[in-house]
Amino acid sequence: MSKMKIAAIQMPTVIDKMENVKTVKNYLEKIKDEKPDFVILPEMFCCPYQTENFPVYAEEENGSVWQQLSAYAKQYGIYLIGGSMPEKDAEGNVYNTSYIFNREGKQIGKHRKAHLFDIDVKGGQTFKESDTLTAGDRDTVFDTEFGKMGVMLCFDIRFPELSRMMVNDGAKVIFVPAAFNMTTGPAHWELSFRTRALDNQIYMVGCAPARDITAGYISWGHSIVTNPWGAVVDMLDEKEGILLAELDMGYEEQVREELPLLKSRRKDMYRLEKLCR
Amino acid sequence: MSKMKIAAIQMPTVIDKMENVKTVKNYLEKIKDEKPDFVILPEMFCCPYQTENFPVYAEEENGSVWQQLSAYAKQYGIYLIGGSMPEKDAEGNVYNTSYIFNREGKQIGKHRKAHLFDIDVKGGQTFKESDTLTAGDRDTVFDTEFGKMGVMLCFDIRFPELSRMMVNDGAKVIFVPAAFNMTTGPAHWELSFRTRALDNQIYMVGCAPARDITAGYISWGHSIVTNPWGAVVDMLDEKEGILLAELDMGYEEQVREELPLLKSRRKDMYRLEKLCR
Repeated sequence: MSKMKIAAIQMPTVIDKMENVKTVKNYLEKIKDEKPDFVILPEMFCCPYQTENFPVYAEEENGSVWQQLSAYAKQYGIYLIGGSMPEKDAEGNVYNTSYIFNREGKQIGKHRKAHLFDIDVKGGQTFKESDTLTAGDRDTVFDTEFGKMGVMLCFDIRFPELSRMMVNDGAKVIFVPAAFNMTTGPAHWELSFRTRALDNQIYMVGCAPARDITAGYISWGHSIVTNPWGAVVDMLDEKEGILLAELDMGYEEQVREELPLLKSRRKDMYRLEKLCR
Repeated sequence: MSKMKIAAIQMPTVIDKMENVKTVKNYLEKIKDEKPDFVILPEMFCCPYQTENFPVYAEEENGSVWQQLSAYAKQYGIYLIGGSMPEKDAEGNVYNTSYIFNREGKQIGKHRKAHLFDIDVKGGQTFKESDTLTAGDRDTVFDTEFGKMGVMLCFDIRFPELSRMMVNDGAKVIFVPAAFNMTTGPAHWELSFRTRALDNQIYMVGCAPARDITAGYISWGHSIVTNPWGAVVDMLDEKEGILLAELDMGYEEQVREELPLLKSRRKDMYRLEKLCR
């Protein structure tokens, strides 16, 4: 089980929630002959990315979108990283949540975005997720036959502590449903994916919504795969499309031997302590 | 004291140790009218970068090279980040050490490379510093009238924990005498400087030896300054030369307000504990 095939679906997001879920199904049907092991969807793939939409589109775990994603994972025999969607809990809090299903359609992980995206760049992007969202409070790593994998969401990638913590917990690939914008995208998207991959000697897979210039929040697109050497394996442009790639766990081991960054950490000088869970 | 001027001297390294020190003097004379606040020299600026040279070129602190650097700092009224040179301690251990002098020529900091460079890339670079060097065991931050500054050496930049720890201690600029090679240079040099600057919302200044294709270890060159937005302010090519740049601490504050990465860390989820000193 050294090589695994992934597909990132850079799909558009429309106003009709279940229409987006149908788009997922269409794509899964389209790529089924490629036999991907993992499929990843974009952040907020079924809810136009605006703070006021999150409470309106929110569903509790096991809601209608969740049910469909679970069914698709089972039908196509894939691990499905369900991008993200607004999740409502019993107390009425709303989270930016990624559900992760295995090949039997069973939920094997769930990541609530831990770092909310609050930004106010002069002459650039302004956005404040914390207006309507509550942050998650743990990192997310789960088991597969290829080894441990992790999921984080968009702004989470900004914080080297989080990916490091996940790698300390054994993650060999980190999947990132994300939606950088026209300010942060050109400046930081590729850089962030290359760096987290290089520093942690892992593969990183990012999946963004296709760009819609009429949207309230304009996605940078550019779904991406980076490898443990810090190189871009493949990257889409801004348009709707699919990124298919093969991740080689043997290559990951090779890089870790040749450039032993993880081994060379000075554990006598610093320690990243995990305080959650 | 919002703006500070820095100069990185991308000089060649020759076999004659004191000849290299003379080169430093020539450059300082040449740029004195620019009135730089900080001058940084390359890693191993007075010792051709090969493991067998380190014990031979090594001097104790206060040795002849140290004396000259201290005198230059005073003469030109600059902070001098003395690149690095092999340092011998009383027990005969050899370190890759950067001495830092203030405008009066007083040593205000000293960094011993904490992560030794051991690498063995198939078809690429092989090197093993640990054959002859001992690693330092602490990070290095010092005070100036512009705020706190830090120094790390080359391979140290690979470890996000180290820069984070220095920023937690207040560093607003990190100076990095370094010598990436023809394998790691094109792959990781610019990426590393951009990332540490972006993640930590600081300026990074890297100074490398000029390339000498006849040398045992061939330097990538490309001395560089990156800013808190993760952009390259300026970068040299591989040839001998000077990089002059102005660092704006006001801009650093602005980026920290607009894209509040440092503030948004989840200190309830993780903690980077400093174990040294």
